[in-house]
Amino acid sequence: MRVRDLAEELGGRVVGEGVRRIKGIADLEHADKYEIAYVDSEKLFAAAAESKAWCLIVPEGVDEKFPDRTLIVVANPKLAFAKVGAWFSPSGYRKAAIHPTAVIAETADVAVTAYVGPHVCVGEHTHVGDYTRLEAGVVLGSNVTVGDSCVLHPNVVLYDNVSIGLGVILHAGVCLGADGFGYVRDDFGYRKFPQVGTVVIEDDVEIGAYSCVDRAALGRTRIGRGTKLDNMVHVGHNCDIGERVVIAAQTGISGSVVIEDDAVIGGQVGFGDHTRVQKGAVIGSKAGILPGKIVRPGVWWGIPVQPLDQYKRMNAHMNRLPQMREEIKRLEAEIEELKKKIQVP
Amino acid sequence: MRVRDLAEELGGRVVGEGVRRIKGIADLEHADKYEIAYVDSEKLFAAAAESKAWCLIVPEGVDEKFPDRTLIVVANPKLAFAKVGAWFSPSGYRKAAIHPTAVIAETADVAVTAYVGPHVCVGEHTHVGDYTRLEAGVVLGSNVTVGDSCVLHPNVVLYDNVSIGLGVILHAGVCLGADGFGYVRDDFGYRKFPQVGTVVIEDDVEIGAYSCVDRAALGRTRIGRGTKLDNMVHVGHNCDIGERVVIAAQTGISGSVVIEDDAVIGGQVGFGDHTRVQKGAVIGSKAGILPGKIVRPGVWWGIPVQPLDQYKRMNAHMNRLPQMREEIKRLEAEIEELKKKIQVP
Amino acid sequence: MRVRDLAEELGGRVVGEGVRRIKGIADLEHADKYEIAYVDSEKLFAAAAESKAWCLIVPEGVDEKFPDRTLIVVANPKLAFAKVGAWFSPSGYRKAAIHPTAVIAETADVAVTAYVGPHVCVGEHTHVGDYTRLEAGVVLGSNVTVGDSCVLHPNVVLYDNVSIGLGVILHAGVCLGADGFGYVRDDFGYRKFPQVGTVVIEDDVEIGAYSCVDRAALGRTRIGRGTKLDNMVHVGHNCDIGERVVIAAQTGISGSVVIEDDAVIGGQVGFGDHTRVQKGAVIGSKAGILPGKIVRPGVWWGIPVQPLDQYKRMNAHMNRLPQMREEIKRLEAEIEELKKKIQVP
Repeated sequence: MRVRDLAEELGGRVVGEGVRRIKGIADLEHADKYEIAYVDSEKLFAAAAESKAWCLIVPEGVDEKFPDRTLIVVANPKLAFAKVGAWFSPSGYRKAAIHPTAVIAETADVAVTAYVGPHVCVGEHTHVGDYTRLEAGVVLGSNVTVGDSCVLHPNVVLYDNVSIGLGVILHAGVCLGADGFGYVRDDFGYRKFPQVGTVVIEDDVEIGAYSCVDRAALGRTRIGRGTKLDNMVHVGHNCDIGERVVIAAQTGISGSVVIEDDAVIGGQVGFGDHTRVQKGAVIGSKAGILPGKIVRPGVWWGIPVQPLDQYKRMNAHMNRLPQMREEIKRLEAEIEELKKKIQVP
Repeated sequence: MRVRDLAEELGGRVVGEGVRRIKGIADLEHADKYEIAYVDSEKLFAAAAESKAWCLIVPEGVDEKFPDRTLIVVANPKLAFAKVGAWFSPSGYRKAAIHPTAVIAETADVAVTAYVGPHVCVGEHTHVGDYTRLEAGVVLGSNVTVGDSCVLHPNVVLYDNVSIGLGVILHAGVCLGADGFGYVRDDFGYRKFPQVGTVVIEDDVEIGAYSCVDRAALGRTRIGRGTKLDNMVHVGHNCDIGERVVIAAQTGISGSVVIEDDAVIGGQVGFGDHTRVQKGAVIGSKAGILPGKIVRPGVWWGIPVQPLDQYKRMNAHMNRLPQMREEIKRLEAEIEELKKKIQVP
Repeated sequence: MRVRDLAEELGGRVVGEGVRRIKGIADLEHADKYEIAYVDSEKLFAAAAESKAWCLIVPEGVDEKFPDRTLIVVANPKLAFAKVGAWFSPSGYRKAAIHPTAVIAETADVAVTAYVGPHVCVGEHTHVGDYTRLEAGVVLGSNVTVGDSCVLHPNVVLYDNVSIGLGVILHAGVCLGADGFGYVRDDFGYRKFPQVGTVVIEDDVEIGAYSCVDRAALGRTRIGRGTKLDNMVHVGHNCDIGERVVIAAQTGISGSVVIEDDAVIGGQVGFGDHTRVQKGAVIGSKAGILPGKIVRPGVWWGIPVQPLDQYKRMNAHMNRLPQMREEIKRLEAEIEELKKKIQVP
């Protein structure tokens, strides 16, 4: 692609030679002269000056910093770079095909434009949409719905009745629809509470390797449109996760938790059941939320979770403990002094 | 099923029309008039009043609250509902069959009543019991024993020599018998300590998706009868987990830990090696237990773990820190005052 | 093997009958008279005296403790025992073979000495080295390189372009090369940042079941020679993990973290992005490291992580809180006393 065509697609402005061609993307350190890199903060100016990348995506106001390069000037260089990356490596297109080792139920409905890899299983009455890719070893149960343009990486498992929308990406081993963790104790031990609901994943969701979303006991567990989960996230039964939520790796969400739109959740966070995270809340990594808690908008931190400001104040107080102890000792000594003075006369 | 037959099976009492038929279970919100729901607390009375469910399972003493419904009155409505659920959806029965794509060693012994799904592997001298289901992609090593009436969901992996009892449910990707994490450091790095023991899972255990139970170095790792593990639980080598223990998601258990019968363990808990949890202890989510610790009966909390009462007292003390600091300042001021008064005369 | 041959291989000294034969290894409790066990601390002397093991590996200076046994005396009994264990159970040798159900791309290059199990997939231009074992259900993408003498347990997934060295052991379901968790927010939600780098695993690495190492955004994610990861460890994009590092189960490492050689990391630790752990640092289980932090050599603990000494001091201070509160009350009372005395005259 020529630089000026790239710039036009990005809605950006070219400084320098727009007719040369770019053959790929790279970071500043590893780029060669045919690759494009990006600069979005002053911290990267030195690295950019040393980079072999002949073309850079830059923000407004830095034209004169890189006189010997060709620049594409845009409002958000990282976003522009992400778009260029997507053009250069369209995520793993596969030609439509059904591998002869795949086992597909007669009642299944697989689009002719879909790719079904080796050793895949597709259950009864299951639908696989147009241009969707099922990589090797994917297992779809019965009555599953997979929308168009999805990518299911190797060994993904969808239990019966699960439904996923358009453009969903599930990384290796994602498991949707396993039974929720619900039992009733009787005299003999634990008896399984019915886990007969389902899981609904909306459009444009991406889920990392080995993350699990359990089926609802009754009703459904939902992941909203555009939400992104990292690796090894656990979502319990009957949770309702909104749209454009981001959840980092190894976070665990107990049953019946509600996370509203646009929340941002760090890694290794733990949610007690029936908590609610309100729209726009941000929860730091390793936080712990007690059952039933409502987390309001703002930044939250710690175990149990509290507003970041409060957490910092508490931390400051704790760090002052040795000093407080010294002060108490000093006061004791002064009081002893006073006692002596008073008793002397 | 007719309501009066259900009530008889449950040992309950019918109030209203016992001859009508029920076709399934649901929660109060989603039930239609042919489905049965349950009410076990006053909090649900309003939802029950609005529900379309024409038949409800209720506790004693609320007959007059729902005059226009048919009721089944029992001692424990949730337990009764769980039983009804199991009758209506017997967990995924499969007709006996061996899929032609399954690879079964000649020396393996698979019951004729078992179901062996697509792309399953069964190793040498491995036994698969009556009415057991091996779903797609399950891999059993050599000398494995799987008891009767088990369900192994897709992609479960049992390494060589592992043994599981009757009625065990393993969700997608459960891994039993991978090598424990044991090394000996020498001048060149880490040398593997032998991991040649085994894993024994007793009857009626259920294990969540992607949970791992490592084989013992020497000897065996054991999960006792009726114990339930949630998703992504890690059980290290040589652990001994008792009967009717419940362990929530993402908890990690180091090597040689003993958890006695009827313990309840929250999610994301971490156990140091050689700890012992005594019968009936309850450990809150995200707790951390130091190596070698003995956790006595009672409720435990925090990092490091401590009795819940003590944890709460400590938390109260910490919340009083700002106030303590104010008090110290006030005392300082008062002492200054006193000094002045004494020095004046 | 005869005892004296074992001793010679171990560079040890025989006390007793060196001509008898040993048929396996065991721990003191379970050993029979043909098995060898080891003793490396006084705590085990009683168990050793009761053991049926007729031959023991012991440290210097305890010959007279076990007069009725045959001993192999070495500097490090546990290390010697590990070596003996490896001789008796060479980790699962498999005869070279390609199972007829395996799907191997025509352009793949699989060594004739390799073992390729049932339902394995090997992608285009992928290399599998000599004596390497790919167990059932392993999926290798395109342009993957697997070195000699590796063992990939069932259902391991290597995405395209990943490369692993010699003698690497990957337990069930290890996933290398899934996309890193990187997005750019725009008006419509999260847009994927390119994840087009790779993963490089060096020689003699062992990785536990369901651990994930994500591909770099640009560049590579690296695990250095001789490093050992336990189960369910998450390594984010662009991390650089050094040589002989040990990481226990369920630890999560965010993007661009550097861990230098010989670090030891406990279980359930969480690393913020861009942290650096220096050579020889030891981090306790459940620690939390804030983004950008540099962890210097020494032992570290807590959330946020701090030197163990400091953590202990802080804990001691906190445990003294009730006492501090009492002291403040006492001082208040004394000041009141003093006030009275002063005002009386």
